[in-house]
Amino acid sequence: MRIGILTGGGDCPGLNAVIRSVVRSAATHYGSEVVGFRDGWRGLLEDRTTPLDVAAVDGLLTRGGTTLGSARVAPEKLHAGLAQMKAVLAAHGVDVLIPIGGEGTLTAAHLLSQAGVPVVGVPKTIDNDIDGTDLTFGFDTAVSIATDLIDRLHTTAESHQRVLLVEVMGRHAGWIALHAGLASGAHVTLVPEEPFDVAEVAKIVEDRFGRGDTHVIGVVAEGARPLPGTMLVRDGGVDEYGHRRFTGVAQQLGDELERRTGKEVRTTVLGHVQRGGTPTSFDRVLATRFGLHATIAAHEGRHGQMVALRGTEIELVPLAQAVAKLKTVTPSRLAETGAFTG
Amino acid sequence: MRIGILTGGGDCPGLNAVIRSVVRSAATHYGSEVVGFRDGWRGLLEDRTTPLDVAAVDGLLTRGGTTLGSARVAPEKLHAGLAQMKAVLAAHGVDVLIPIGGEGTLTAAHLLSQAGVPVVGVPKTIDNDIDGTDLTFGFDTAVSIATDLIDRLHTTAESHQRVLLVEVMGRHAGWIALHAGLASGAHVTLVPEEPFDVAEVAKIVEDRFGRGDTHVIGVVAEGARPLPGTMLVRDGGVDEYGHRRFTGVAQQLGDELERRTGKEVRTTVLGHVQRGGTPTSFDRVLATRFGLHATIAAHEGRHGQMVALRGTEIELVPLAQAVAKLKTVTPSRLAETGAFTG
Amino acid sequence: MRIGILTGGGDCPGLNAVIRSVVRSAATHYGSEVVGFRDGWRGLLEDRTTPLDVAAVDGLLTRGGTTLGSARVAPEKLHAGLAQMKAVLAAHGVDVLIPIGGEGTLTAAHLLSQAGVPVVGVPKTIDNDIDGTDLTFGFDTAVSIATDLIDRLHTTAESHQRVLLVEVMGRHAGWIALHAGLASGAHVTLVPEEPFDVAEVAKIVEDRFGRGDTHVIGVVAEGARPLPGTMLVRDGGVDEYGHRRFTGVAQQLGDELERRTGKEVRTTVLGHVQRGGTPTSFDRVLATRFGLHATIAAHEGRHGQMVALRGTEIELVPLAQAVAKLKTVTPSRLAETGAFTG
Amino acid sequence: MRIGILTGGGDCPGLNAVIRSVVRSAATHYGSEVVGFRDGWRGLLEDRTTPLDVAAVDGLLTRGGTTLGSARVAPEKLHAGLAQMKAVLAAHGVDVLIPIGGEGTLTAAHLLSQAGVPVVGVPKTIDNDIDGTDLTFGFDTAVSIATDLIDRLHTTAESHQRVLLVEVMGRHAGWIALHAGLASGAHVTLVPEEPFDVAEVAKIVEDRFGRGDTHVIGVVAEGARPLPGTMLVRDGGVDEYGHRRFTGVAQQLGDELERRTGKEVRTTVLGHVQRGGTPTSFDRVLATRFGLHATIAAHEGRHGQMVALRGTEIELVPLAQAVAKLKTVTPSRLAETGAFTG
Repeated sequence: MRIGILTGGGDCPGLNAVIRSVVRSAATHYGSEVVGFRDGWRGLLEDRTTPLDVAAVDGLLTRGGTTLGSARVAPEKLHAGLAQMKAVLAAHGVDVLIPIGGEGTLTAAHLLSQAGVPVVGVPKTIDNDIDGTDLTFGFDTAVSIATDLIDRLHTTAESHQRVLLVEVMGRHAGWIALHAGLASGAHVTLVPEEPFDVAEVAKIVEDRFGRGDTHVIGVVAEGARPLPGTMLVRDGGVDEYGHRRFTGVAQQLGDELERRTGKEVRTTVLGHVQRGGTPTSFDRVLATRFGLHATIAAHEGRHGQMVALRGTEIELVPLAQAVAKLKTVTPSRLAETGAFTG
Repeated sequence: MRIGILTGGGDCPGLNAVIRSVVRSAATHYGSEVVGFRDGWRGLLEDRTTPLDVAAVDGLLTRGGTTLGSARVAPEKLHAGLAQMKAVLAAHGVDVLIPIGGEGTLTAAHLLSQAGVPVVGVPKTIDNDIDGTDLTFGFDTAVSIATDLIDRLHTTAESHQRVLLVEVMGRHAGWIALHAGLASGAHVTLVPEEPFDVAEVAKIVEDRFGRGDTHVIGVVAEGARPLPGTMLVRDGGVDEYGHRRFTGVAQQLGDELERRTGKEVRTTVLGHVQRGGTPTSFDRVLATRFGLHATIAAHEGRHGQMVALRGTEIELVPLAQAVAKLKTVTPSRLAETGAFTG
Repeated sequence: MRIGILTGGGDCPGLNAVIRSVVRSAATHYGSEVVGFRDGWRGLLEDRTTPLDVAAVDGLLTRGGTTLGSARVAPEKLHAGLAQMKAVLAAHGVDVLIPIGGEGTLTAAHLLSQAGVPVVGVPKTIDNDIDGTDLTFGFDTAVSIATDLIDRLHTTAESHQRVLLVEVMGRHAGWIALHAGLASGAHVTLVPEEPFDVAEVAKIVEDRFGRGDTHVIGVVAEGARPLPGTMLVRDGGVDEYGHRRFTGVAQQLGDELERRTGKEVRTTVLGHVQRGGTPTSFDRVLATRFGLHATIAAHEGRHGQMVALRGTEIELVPLAQAVAKLKTVTPSRLAETGAFTG
Repeated sequence: MRIGILTGGGDCPGLNAVIRSVVRSAATHYGSEVVGFRDGWRGLLEDRTTPLDVAAVDGLLTRGGTTLGSARVAPEKLHAGLAQMKAVLAAHGVDVLIPIGGEGTLTAAHLLSQAGVPVVGVPKTIDNDIDGTDLTFGFDTAVSIATDLIDRLHTTAESHQRVLLVEVMGRHAGWIALHAGLASGAHVTLVPEEPFDVAEVAKIVEDRFGRGDTHVIGVVAEGARPLPGTMLVRDGGVDEYGHRRFTGVAQQLGDELERRTGKEVRTTVLGHVQRGGTPTSFDRVLATRFGLHATIAAHEGRHGQMVALRGTEIELVPLAQAVAKLKTVTPSRLAETGAFTG
């Protein structure tokens, strides 16, 4: 058999581990070959490939990013290029395509699947917002990096009796903020799923200093937003999903908190460091298992599906189901975090 | 309400995080008090306590080990001391006891529960061998440390064209070896669940060097054992579960491999470093959620149970069920690892 | 003897290690006592103290920040408060004062010394810009954190064929940028000591992509500035040393590079994470040795001096000499970095 | 010009960084070529080479081990092979040889230099025992790893009220033990330079537990040895320098301490993990600077020398001087550590 593979969307620790896993298990188990398309769907559209054998994936397990490259393509281009992509796949003798990516990539995978291309998807999202799987690789690494850095900020905040706001990734789902907040003992955690009340945040700050506490750490998802009317937020327009975008919410909240409480507030935006570098052992295991099970599904003819973690096992879920909606933080999980606020 | 808490068995990253979580959620949510018993069941038998308020648990989230101390007590002493323990709990006005520990501690918890003491258990095992929960805290930290160290050993092995065997924890279950092996790209992984054939391991070594590979990394659970008759192993007697114990299996396998293959073999025993120090973010989150849900269960009268991770949610399972058997590595999980052998 | 101790200026990994070292060596070697003044010189002016015995410093070796707190005081307040400070020191029976801090703190220390107060200074600067000592603690930690994070950014840049600019600390001296740049294999390193030519930086970017390289990493000290006339930089006014301040130089350079080269440029400002958290082993050793030798100097009557690292030994240098000028990056060190540019 | 390069002795974080630095600076600065000999002197004797251009060293900065491989050769073979090595160098048109290695390698380098071969040495020793340079790369990484791991062991020791002995590298010089001991707050540090008195160590253990302290951490260099007559130590024969070798000194001391004090003692031998994996930022900078200055010296005709760190600058010292004696821990440095014992 001949497998095609590509990585779409933003980079993510574990992408290379999936590629290595597919190549090794295809070769060892089935004697199958793998061809990589460069720069995501664009490479498939433009017929740019890389042969991938066992030697080519040596050392990829621990390397961040994606050796295949990645680039964004507008959805309408994908629609228009359907026939072209099928022709390229046929020209390379690709029997099954394994696209690794987030919501956009999996939606495109679903499109190809409906057009008759045998596809097995591998979900990838640092934000952990793909439905149908308990977790995705990259998320644990992102939370781990954010937690390490917030650990470091604690001592600075203590020494100077400051409020420290840390902006983490998460435009539409607050999973990283939720986990990093719990893991680092944050006193406030703000997520996109629940608009925050600036007055309430200010009160937490004042209460803590009032009790003699030395500092306040707040973890703020980049997509967090204030309750309408409680704080003016500079508008960043509308994103690709039609959601309103806010720029630098942590910085703006910080300015407002300084004004209201008179305390010194500093803001740190963690940014790209959350998505780079070697994956944690957790993500390496998950990515490797995803790759293996995608390869098995490809050979067993279980197409139109996506590999998913359910409890401790890797299962298959229909692509249609996986892309139906984003997985956001539930009220019960928010309530858990509430128990450690203040 | 008044909650008693104790930590039993070997130390484990996340124990302190559970203690902090119980104390904070009991105080914040319910206005309840917590008293800690020192050195596990021994402190309960000998009436040695520590008051635990919110100030006392400050900073515990990130600290390894257990601030309450831990010590082993023989099961027969616990049986004999049942009345004594009930008297001490009554004297301190303890309404519910939350013991945190492994198989031994949870068996004792079950015993107390059957004797009418309201108990909510929290499972703890670095080895991840407690049944009824997907995972326990401490395991991710142990795998993460082992993986980091094996990453380091790779380059030494490469530079000197060596076989490197790394002995990791896991007497009765090979979960740490399985995960660290997958995460570090080990070429051989040996676990207690499946006796190994020395000839087969020697063949993997010879095949790799024969193909021009520069090195071989083997991850060996301390409880791994050879197929009867394939290798002489020095006997370490019989352990508390009646299993035969082998001493230094990695070292002995290494000697045998050197003899058979003529290659230079080095052995590293990771030992206690796997169980100490600050927990990973994953384990901090899990430990904090376990503590919170144990506190909720304590207040809601859901006793005789243990908190457990099932998928992404924390649930309760009967103590009786949790201690019925050890959770060992399944054949399907072993098969996954087999895909990356050699 | 009775020693007074205080920490001034911004926090820095290793401050607590110095405090612990002074307290332990004073107690063990000399049977002397130590009193801490809170929040730097302000605590001395306002007579706010903390007793520091061996138990109080337990665990401080690994903790970032300063347990004594720190705050900035205007130099004129210090001049005006000289008599007040002497009175407070006398009231507490302080025989020798050990202030730990940067240029501002050591200048104040020199002032007190000239006014007859026995003083032994301990140099502290993350930026490594204090003259008279090879290195100061905190610097290695900052470089180490910056390097770890830049390592992570490499893979993101590679995967997306980007230019990544990383702004690190260093307003007046580029030591952190220089070392983190060398350690992370940066393709461009910009420091305050040598104004950069935007056209030259743009050429490096174009040359690399022209040769088929996948990405460009630039490390930019926050105090780096363009050659006059080559790029418009938003002005941030004048700082306390009379130097012109620029805001967000990396971001502004990034915008300009995007405009000139048409390549995607992303900027990350590392910020406070560089100065927090547990010190590296290197900084723990240096801080501990500084504390020990300051205590020895205090007892041997060698006052008006500062401890300093010279090669592998800790020596004493006059405070007057240490504060005479900042230690900036030399042309020969810049030339070393030049060898790895592009 | 054509430069030959080889790496000798045990592997060490930073070797690859030196290779990369030599290749890049030779190409960029001088347009010179570099040829690598495989597996140390053996590759030179047997004429096994690898061409090294800028592409070949991409990514080496962060990689542990040595891409050239390393192997030990008996000194008499080197003497006998002198003419052969000169012939191989001539055949490859090598103008200057840059050997990177420890005492053995530098002694061989000196031999070649005296035989008329232009040589510039680069010192490498994890143990930091080469004379003539303040520090060597690899040492900081080893100390850093050891310190991280001892940090982890602290909490286990505390939780179980144990004595924990950690055996670190250092056969003839105790630098790693000295620095890791200071950095981790060890209560006892034992080095080869000063035989230890078991009774004294036992007294420290008893005094600490007598004062109510919860644990004792001891750092033991593998070459530490007891005062004659105080403890029976199993003999490991005589090493290549004629020194008596002891096997497992930490384990044997632990057994003895258990017997004498009745306390539970556990021993951890860190082993090979100290010498593998990615170098610290400190070691990357040092290795890169060593490589650059060796290349400059090669081109400037300053042969028969070794690059060395003196304070903050890289200088040249005669090979003859560097190999005259080992650099061991001085009494004044031992006295510093003594201040923190107990």
